[in-house]
Formats: sequence, C-alpha cells, structure tokens
Amino acid sequence: MDRSQKIGGVLGGMGPDATVDFMAKVIALTDAGCDQDHVRMLVDHNPHVPNRQQAILGDGEDPGPALAAMAAQLEASGAHFLVIPCNTAYVFEDDILAATSIPLISIITESVSAVRDRAPGAKSVGILATDGCLKSGIYQAGIEAAGMTVVLPTAGELEQTMVLINAIKAGTQSKAAGAGMKSLAAGLVSRGADAIIAGCTEIPLVLHDAAVDVPLISSTDVLALKTVKLAMGGESLPAR
Amino acid sequence: MDRSQKIGGVLGGMGPDATVDFMAKVIALTDAGCDQDHVRMLVDHNPHVPNRQQAILGDGEDPGPALAAMAAQLEASGAHFLVIPCNTAYVFEDDILAATSIPLISIITESVSAVRDRAPGAKSVGILATDGCLKSGIYQAGIEAAGMTVVLPTAGELEQTMVLINAIKAGTQSKAAGAGMKSLAAGLVSRGADAIIAGCTEIPLVLHDAAVDVPLISSTDVLALKTVKLAMGGESLPAR
Repeated sequence: MDRSQKIGGVLGGMGPDATVDFMAKVIALTDAGCDQDHVRMLVDHNPHVPNRQQAILGDGEDPGPALAAMAAQLEASGAHFLVIPCNTAYVFEDDILAATSIPLISIITESVSAVRDRAPGAKSVGILATDGCLKSGIYQAGIEAAGMTVVLPTAGELEQTMVLINAIKAGTQSKAAGAGMKSLAAGLVSRGADAIIAGCTEIPLVLHDAAVDVPLISSTDVLALKTVKLAMGGESLPAR
Repeated sequence: MDRSQKIGGVLGGMGPDATVDFMAKVIALTDAGCDQDHVRMLVDHNPHVPNRQQAILGDGEDPGPALAAMAAQLEASGAHFLVIPCNTAYVFEDDILAATSIPLISIITESVSAVRDRAPGAKSVGILATDGCLKSGIYQAGIEAAGMTVVLPTAGELEQTMVLINAIKAGTQSKAAGAGMKSLAAGLVSRGADAIIAGCTEIPLVLHDAAVDVPLISSTDVLALKTVKLAMGGESLPAR
C-alpha cells in the first residue's frame, strides 16, 4: 500500500443494497491489476439506524446518536475520512461532526458540484429524493447557492417516489420500479429541469442514464468517484 | 433491532468483488421488509492484506499479522463473530484465533458440510480453489474427514484456474472467464466428482449452478447463509 493512500470510513446499510452498489462502484472506478491495488474501506453496514425520513417528518427516533457512534468508531478504527451512501443521513451531519475530527465528505455538495461538470449550462435542476431529504431543504439550499433553480416533485410524485424507494429497500429492484422512476424523472424534465440529481442512493439501482432525456447525476456514483480520488491520494483530504 | 441479533465481523477485500458479492448475498438471503430488518455487518474491506497464495507458496509476506489485526479491531468495534469471504485466508486462521475471543466461522467446514445437504450421496468431491489453498490441504482434510474422496485439478488446470481468478481480481468478470471455469469444472466431473465446491470466492462471480452437471457448492453462498442464520439468531453462536 502506498503511504499516500487513505482509508475511507463508510456509514453504510442505509439502505443495504445501496451500500453494496456504492462499494461495487468504488471497486469498478479503481484502476487495479490485483487485490492490493484496490482501496481499503472500513464499512459499518448498519441497517438498524433509525429511519431518517420518519425522524425528519416528526414521528420517529432520532438517528443522530447512532450515526455519531458509528462515525466515532470508524475514526477510532483507523478511517481517515467519512462518507455515507445515503443522502438523507446528511441531515444529521452536525451530530457526526460533533463526534469526530476527520472530514465528512458531503454527498449533497458533491452531487450539486457534479451538475456543473455533467451539465455545464444547466439553469434548473430536478431532484428525486426522499420526503425527509426534501423537507429538510439540504438539496434546495445547495442548488440555489450554486446559482441554479430547483424543480421538485409534486406531492403525488413524492408519494410515488417513496413507494418505489421503500420497495427497493425491501429487496424489489423490478422493471416496474425502473419504469416508475423513469416516469418521475420525465415529470421533472417536462417542468423545466435541465439536469436531474438522483438524490437518494436507492434510485440509481433502478434508474440509469439512458432512461432520462437530460443529464442524470447519480449521487452514488459521485460519492464513489470522490472516495476513490481521496483514498488513492489523487485529491487531498479537505480540512476539518 | 431484536436483542438476539448478532453483528457479523467481515474480514473483506480478498478480493474486493467477492466481498461485495458476499454482502449482496447476505442481503438477498434476509427476509426483510425495510432497512431495519436487515443484518448489521462490520466490514474491514482491506484488499491490502498480503497475497495469501504467494505466502503459502513460499515467496511472499505473511498475511497472518494483518488478518489478526483486522480481526482484533472488528471484535473491539462490536462484532460478535467473524467470517472471511476468502477461502485461502483460512490457512491463517490460527493467527486470527490467537488475536480474538469471538468465534471465527470456517468457510471450509461450512462448504464441506453443505455437500452433505446438496449432494447427500456424493462419494467424491471436486475442488476448484487457488494453488495456495490446495497446497495447504485444508479442503482435502475436511472432505476426507467427512468420509469422501477428493478430485483435484491437474497442474495445468490449476494454472488455468489461477489465470481466471487473477483476471477476476483485476476486474474482469467476462463470459470467457465463465466458459473457462465451466470447462475446469467439467474436467473434475469427468474424473469422477459427484459434487464440486467452488472453494474460492472469485469463482461464483462467473460460475453458476446451471453450468455444471453435478451439484455446485458456492463457498460464498454457504458463508452468506450461515452469516444470516447467526446474525438473525436462527442459530446460536458456536463456542470459543
């Protein structure tokens, strides 16, 4: 192992298949000729973290303490930086920051930044995300800070998004789920989105580039690429 | 989380895709309706562990200390039992046992035991595994202790097996690799194997049941199923 390499700490299991998808993408994005060329990750694959959506919507246990404890343990185990392949969990990032002293890479910031690379002229960005994530406003704030406007799902579309996301979490990555997500993306495009952020890590499991008429930014792929760059030393760790 | 649930500690990254395949199988084998129904795993995805084959064949760094350190850290982080989705790593199980006090589930023992379930009348078991694993004799000892005889690859077949395994570790899960592995399995069957153990976790990435004329025992699937049973409390942890 090259001394400049860094170990990524992954707060995972939210959901389980999304974490596996994230890890597979990290592996696929690494230029490797043998095991030892790949990046090391410490993964707390913990699906038992309290439901993020329910907590934000007001009737569920706070997941902040569980996320903080996972992050502190990953740092103690040797992680040099933290990532979470779950967008909604970033609503609780202050709890994680308070419990650790290593950088937490934001999937939100990275995904908004990726819009600029993938769709340089985009003025209006559609977001597919959970109800909790959208209620928190973290994506809207990031997109507006970058000088773009936001196209949100309607109430009915958001309800349908949650049905599909929860089916994927339960293990159903069906063609019907893909068709449903494609239709939701088309709705955002019809209302002016020049690019779409798949801002929930369940979504890229069923929705792919070819199904959307504008650039589709997969938050999972964005976080995986950033993880490879940081782990391999191609990018320096941000300050804490 | 049910109090009877246990946390599995996974010594992973050997190889990377095999660990992701193992985790995906644990998730698929779990009867879950939402994130919180899934099992928690602490995964040290560490591809930097020194090459097991080279160490056994006599010209590489000993991976024992790295495996022992990973295992001790997983125990300290809260794991209740340990698994390794890498068959050859079990050659170094004494190092891991010396560094920990929690059970280490043997992929070798479990895979041999699975032959009895999947092919009850089998008298002769073929093994596809790495050169290091076969040189150590751990599979041969397990199969003979279970009253069955062993069918091994020829020297040429073993060389071809390693070419395919190393290509998979480098990221190539091609149809050609699947065809090559199928041909190697057919060789074992032609020499009398009533069942075949895919005794390297890279192999199930390209070789599936339908490609083999006798029962094929995937060591990855066997370990994943055992992990789910132990984690969900369906089976008690073995004594240490």
